[in-house]
Amino acid sequence: MDVCNLGQEIEVPKNFTIKGVLELLMANTEEIKGKKLISLGIGDPTAHSCFRTSSAAQEAVVDALRSNKFNGYAPTAGLPQTRMAIAEYLSRDLPYDLLPEDVYVTSGCTQAIEIALSILSRPGANILLPRPGFPVYGLCSAFRNLEARYFDLLPDNQWEVDLTTVGHLADHNTVAMVIINPGNPCGNVYSYQHLKEIAETAKRLGIVVISDEVYGHLAFGNNPFVPMGVFGSIAPVITLGSLSKRWLVPGWRLGWLVTTDPDGTLKSPKFVERLKKYCDICGGSATFIQAAVPAILEEKQDVFFRKTINILKQTSDTCYRKMKEINCITCPHKPEWSMAYMVKLNISMLKDISDDIDFCFKLAKEESVIILPGLAVGLKNWLRIIFAVEPSCLEEALERVKSFCQRHSR
Amino acid sequence: MDVCNLGQEIEVPKNFTIKGVLELLMANTEEIKGKKLISLGIGDPTAHSCFRTSSAAQEAVVDALRSNKFNGYAPTAGLPQTRMAIAEYLSRDLPYDLLPEDVYVTSGCTQAIEIALSILSRPGANILLPRPGFPVYGLCSAFRNLEARYFDLLPDNQWEVDLTTVGHLADHNTVAMVIINPGNPCGNVYSYQHLKEIAETAKRLGIVVISDEVYGHLAFGNNPFVPMGVFGSIAPVITLGSLSKRWLVPGWRLGWLVTTDPDGTLKSPKFVERLKKYCDICGGSATFIQAAVPAILEEKQDVFFRKTINILKQTSDTCYRKMKEINCITCPHKPEWSMAYMVKLNISMLKDISDDIDFCFKLAKEESVIILPGLAVGLKNWLRIIFAVEPSCLEEALERVKSFCQRHSR
Ligand SMILES: Cc1ncc(COP(=O)(O)O)c(C=O)c1O
Ligand SMILES: Cc1ncc(COP(=O)(O)O)c(C=O)c1O
Repeated sequence: MDVCNLGQEIEVPKNFTIKGVLELLMANTEEIKGKKLISLGIGDPTAHSCFRTSSAAQEAVVDALRSNKFNGYAPTAGLPQTRMAIAEYLSRDLPYDLLPEDVYVTSGCTQAIEIALSILSRPGANILLPRPGFPVYGLCSAFRNLEARYFDLLPDNQWEVDLTTVGHLADHNTVAMVIINPGNPCGNVYSYQHLKEIAETAKRLGIVVISDEVYGHLAFGNNPFVPMGVFGSIAPVITLGSLSKRWLVPGWRLGWLVTTDPDGTLKSPKFVERLKKYCDICGGSATFIQAAVPAILEEKQDVFFRKTINILKQTSDTCYRKMKEINCITCPHKPEWSMAYMVKLNISMLKDISDDIDFCFKLAKEESVIILPGLAVGLKNWLRIIFAVEPSCLEEALERVKSFCQRHSR
Repeated sequence: MDVCNLGQEIEVPKNFTIKGVLELLMANTEEIKGKKLISLGIGDPTAHSCFRTSSAAQEAVVDALRSNKFNGYAPTAGLPQTRMAIAEYLSRDLPYDLLPEDVYVTSGCTQAIEIALSILSRPGANILLPRPGFPVYGLCSAFRNLEARYFDLLPDNQWEVDLTTVGHLADHNTVAMVIINPGNPCGNVYSYQHLKEIAETAKRLGIVVISDEVYGHLAFGNNPFVPMGVFGSIAPVITLGSLSKRWLVPGWRLGWLVTTDPDGTLKSPKFVERLKKYCDICGGSATFIQAAVPAILEEKQDVFFRKTINILKQTSDTCYRKMKEINCITCPHKPEWSMAYMVKLNISMLKDISDDIDFCFKLAKEESVIILPGLAVGLKNWLRIIFAVEPSCLEEALERVKSFCQRHSR
């Protein structure tokens, strides 16, 4: 190998990354007098002071750090007390009790995704991913030589999984299917019945369900959240989650991968050994943050949770109402969960905008508002709107979107 | 795929992990009256109160957390100020200035290793690793389908790299060679001249040098530490490091991968894009810990550093002296760096011990002392001793090793 050719030799996955697209959009924004930049682009509400984590959670971390007991390495899979606390937290919503051994502590849900896909991958394997979805899954598959096959989520059916397509896509090399529930980017939540059908499909196909529940419990609509692990005895389920969203601390990098699998399919010694060894090369999350998890998960934070939910309810309503006022945009589904939802762009109603990417770049330039083009999450000519934004900022941003659309309408 | 066969389908790398071996040893230890367990097994001195991080570093983290400014996501490659601070810190010892763009913030040096190996891997590639070495490299190579080829470090030559073998091992599919300097497990440091020869060898072979400097500046002997980046214009160098060892905070999970490569071979847009995208699936380190890094690296901590160094000097001397008293053990090289060194076991002088593994298991059982068998780092019938241990504990442990050896001598 000639080192000078390193760049040419290396393959770069073509997949979008949300951060990559948003960075490009940011770079395209001009300082416009009187228009401060507002981003409805990234699922990180911590920039807004109304979305601040509880001081109890924060002080639990400070205490763990100052105790001087948690500056050293944690065991590969996490501190025992942290694994135990996560097992108990998740068991509250399950018909069986998880054990600490079921839990692997990770550097955010992102690393949990990376671990799940890596340990399941083997030569020739493929994985079924939702479209629209979360791009880290596609990118991770590309790096792990796992062929990504996409099934559709049905906008006219509350973004349910198109299970017929799932059946057609799978073959004997399919290792898993991924669901994101509560949904990012769709802002929906699946019913008990639909989740059961997903489990039965997975059972029929002989595959694992990876259930990304990073937005678990962030609900402001009527549907109850049912964790996929409830159906773990129909098909083996790997549940992924983190503190990031519910506790408003995506920067803390504390997540989990949990084998919610009462029949123990995922507890074969070989699989567990592979998982543990994989965790050994991963880096993992800070020990003192892990040490604070029992206090954080036990803490009765009803007031804190309610405050977040109330703001999200308000901002999602605002978003839905305002978007309805815009001619060239339709919203198939009112958001009731998570921090994001999808709206459809009717390109034919716009005179000088070619697609969602063009829309978002022009919007950034003319209005200093950042929105993620749907293509970045797999749906051309849709937009993903993050509504976890200070209410007045959100109103202002949507007002600008509206006038932008009016200006560019036929 | 039949999910019930998941366990059988999955390949588990056969590589040792240090944590895995130590866990087995621990499980083999019996409560012995009056003999508390002492571990000379893991490079984590934080269990001993004499190795406590500085309160300035700790309070910098508390301040960053309480500021409420760093609960959100950091950019993929790390906070700009963190990248800048690390670039400046490393540039102090280089003949050129690093830029913030050269630095990628990682979840400890472990994740830096994982990223370096993953981004260099491509189908058919191989990598040259030192023996004895750090097992994460072998394990990571196995997970990335990178063929690991081992070159020897020469105990009678101050553990220098056997460059002749390196030349023979490399072919057109070789992407990199790894050095660990200051050395773990050997406790040595390479001279300017030897590092230059390594760089020239790498240049001739057309490969990248990955230089693991996680023990950088932990010196208590006479040799000066020269970072490999000094030779970055001879061959491209990727420098890996972390706060873990020098600041005594392995649990904080803050490390770095740095392209110390003034000619920009590693700065091709394709390579940088691949690196950035890879960081997007990694999880990374906590934002508020990143935010504390500028204060931590700037802080004049001479008193703190000197204290650590003084204790390590004392404990390494103790270790060397005590080991010399044991007949069946020889020490080719006095440790002057890092926290570990290697001693040789003369198995023929022991009557009922078959090899290093047997030695360590019997020692754990009979004496409640944990030592890592050399095989775990690639050298059969050697032992790796960690001497970053409270002086009185170390004396006690070595006394037990001595009586164990006497009892088992022919
Ligand atoms: C569906 C989904 N999964 C995983 C993640 C990553 O979570 P974390 O911040 O805990 O790494 C996100 C973040 O936005 C997400 O939307
Ligand atoms: C040579 C070497 N590299 C890397 C590491 C991992 O460092 P970190 O704790 O920063 O992940 C260690 C830890 O012992 C080490 O000895």
